[in-house]
Amino acid sequence: MNLPSLSDIRSAHSRIKPFIHQTPVLTSQQLNKIFGCELFFKCENFQKVGAFKFRGATNAVLSLKDDEKQRGVVTHSSGNHAAALSLAARMNDVKAFIVMPETAPEVKKNAVKGYGAEITFCKPTLQAREETAQKIIDRTGAILVHPYDNFNVICGQGTASVELLNMVPDLEIIVAPIGGGGLMSGTSTAVKGINNNISVIGAEPLNASDARESFKTGRIIPSVNPVTIADGLLTSLSELTFTIIRKNVDDIFTAREETIIECMLLVWERMKIVIEPSSATVLAIVKENPEFFRNKRTGLIISGGNVDFRKLPF
Amino acid sequence: MNLPSLSDIRSAHSRIKPFIHQTPVLTSQQLNKIFGCELFFKCENFQKVGAFKFRGATNAVLSLKDDEKQRGVVTHSSGNHAAALSLAARMNDVKAFIVMPETAPEVKKNAVKGYGAEITFCKPTLQAREETAQKIIDRTGAILVHPYDNFNVICGQGTASVELLNMVPDLEIIVAPIGGGGLMSGTSTAVKGINNNISVIGAEPLNASDARESFKTGRIIPSVNPVTIADGLLTSLSELTFTIIRKNVDDIFTAREETIIECMLLVWERMKIVIEPSSATVLAIVKENPEFFRNKRTGLIISGGNVDFRKLPF
Repeated sequence: MNLPSLSDIRSAHSRIKPFIHQTPVLTSQQLNKIFGCELFFKCENFQKVGAFKFRGATNAVLSLKDDEKQRGVVTHSSGNHAAALSLAARMNDVKAFIVMPETAPEVKKNAVKGYGAEITFCKPTLQAREETAQKIIDRTGAILVHPYDNFNVICGQGTASVELLNMVPDLEIIVAPIGGGGLMSGTSTAVKGINNNISVIGAEPLNASDARESFKTGRIIPSVNPVTIADGLLTSLSELTFTIIRKNVDDIFTAREETIIECMLLVWERMKIVIEPSSATVLAIVKENPEFFRNKRTGLIISGGNVDFRKLPF
Repeated sequence: MNLPSLSDIRSAHSRIKPFIHQTPVLTSQQLNKIFGCELFFKCENFQKVGAFKFRGATNAVLSLKDDEKQRGVVTHSSGNHAAALSLAARMNDVKAFIVMPETAPEVKKNAVKGYGAEITFCKPTLQAREETAQKIIDRTGAILVHPYDNFNVICGQGTASVELLNMVPDLEIIVAPIGGGGLMSGTSTAVKGINNNISVIGAEPLNASDARESFKTGRIIPSVNPVTIADGLLTSLSELTFTIIRKNVDDIFTAREETIIECMLLVWERMKIVIEPSSATVLAIVKENPEFFRNKRTGLIISGGNVDFRKLPF
């Protein structure tokens, strides 16, 4: 299995730099006081399409060979990755085919349409999605860009931590959320490559703790119908992301739903920035594990800020 | 009447710089496209206490003579100015007395208490507030720091525009909201002092258009029980702020409630920052006057980000 290295992530960074936002690292004296540690928020909610996903998608598109670019890219996703791949493709004159369940929210359909992608609707099952994507591949030769089980996507996601450590080199801990493990694979590879002494901690909702269970038992435990407000963290690890995470991640902590919601509100109120529940999960594990983080200089990867403001949990 | 000059504002800036945040100027390609002009958001929602008010309050506290500092400061306000004066006073070891109506929301009472101010409650009328403040002054000799009818407060508020024009010198228009006129007095004095060719435009809710009416008729029309979501813009001009605004401001535009709400949501969704309705008013007048702003490089003073997330209008 070909695992990405820090050098692959640095190459990805050079490649995508002209297309992405170098997002800011924010701090809050108020939150430092509340949490008893020094927090550095790497704000991918300010990334294009409102999420880190644009890094990985852009690297995947830019890594295509010329003949592949002509065939286009395809993915099945209704979330941030679909929007990210659509925009990354459009910015590079590559056609994007997005397979979405008919049941996806109008706002997500419109976002993807707005970026000029061709949407194919399917039944809301994984099987239907995969079959529909395969039909598109058979017909067009388009290249599948999986949301996380993809070498180039992982390398792109790792670039956020490269920027974070450029700006704040002396961190002691870096926390990122884990869904399918793409962000955490890139994050942990980058961080351990730059400074092996930095602890890398994964954050998961207690209600979707499949990555923690997989990490503890040594085999992939799939996520089965998890119910959590952190809607970016519902997916299961792949062989690739699990292998990287076992190798690089120091531990995975979980947080309760009420802590996730409380931390989301706290960031909105005190920092005046909009973060999505999946991002609040990283702060929530800090809250639930105060001894571990006490007085530590801790980097938090804030994964995104795409929220339905009409369905807030508070 | 002693009107502030650019030089007074620059002195205020040197004075308060060690205490305030130099807030960022944000841009959004998406919003530029939607509004057909180039927008530069001076983000005072990221200022301490979540509003520009901290600039004026800090300048007022730092401008006290030594014997005045020992007597303390007093104001009657339930909003951002009360929190700003409380924090500015605490940071300078000055006692703050805040007169608040008994009916003020708990969250605001707690914010002011949290900054260590002494709160005196009164009936929710202007007369009760002024009388209560006067009693405190009689008893303690504390110095009244009015939220806007105050030379030093106005100078402090003007420093946001100094920073904005340092970062983006070639603006063609600058828009700020008008409530009591403190922010607009400081803004317009700073902007016209730096570059007389820049248009200075005030933004008001249509439902609280007393400043526009005053501006058009040449005499102060008080704001009488206005009903608007922009709860920072309910107050009336003073002789001082009206005089400055007549002298420096090019025009005052109004916006409808639904436009204010729509623009607030748009900024939250697209820029991932939390702004309060009063701040959304500046964008709302851009939306309602597209011809005036078309292709213009426009600076917007985003006054604050203090919102009750449990009472959102969307």
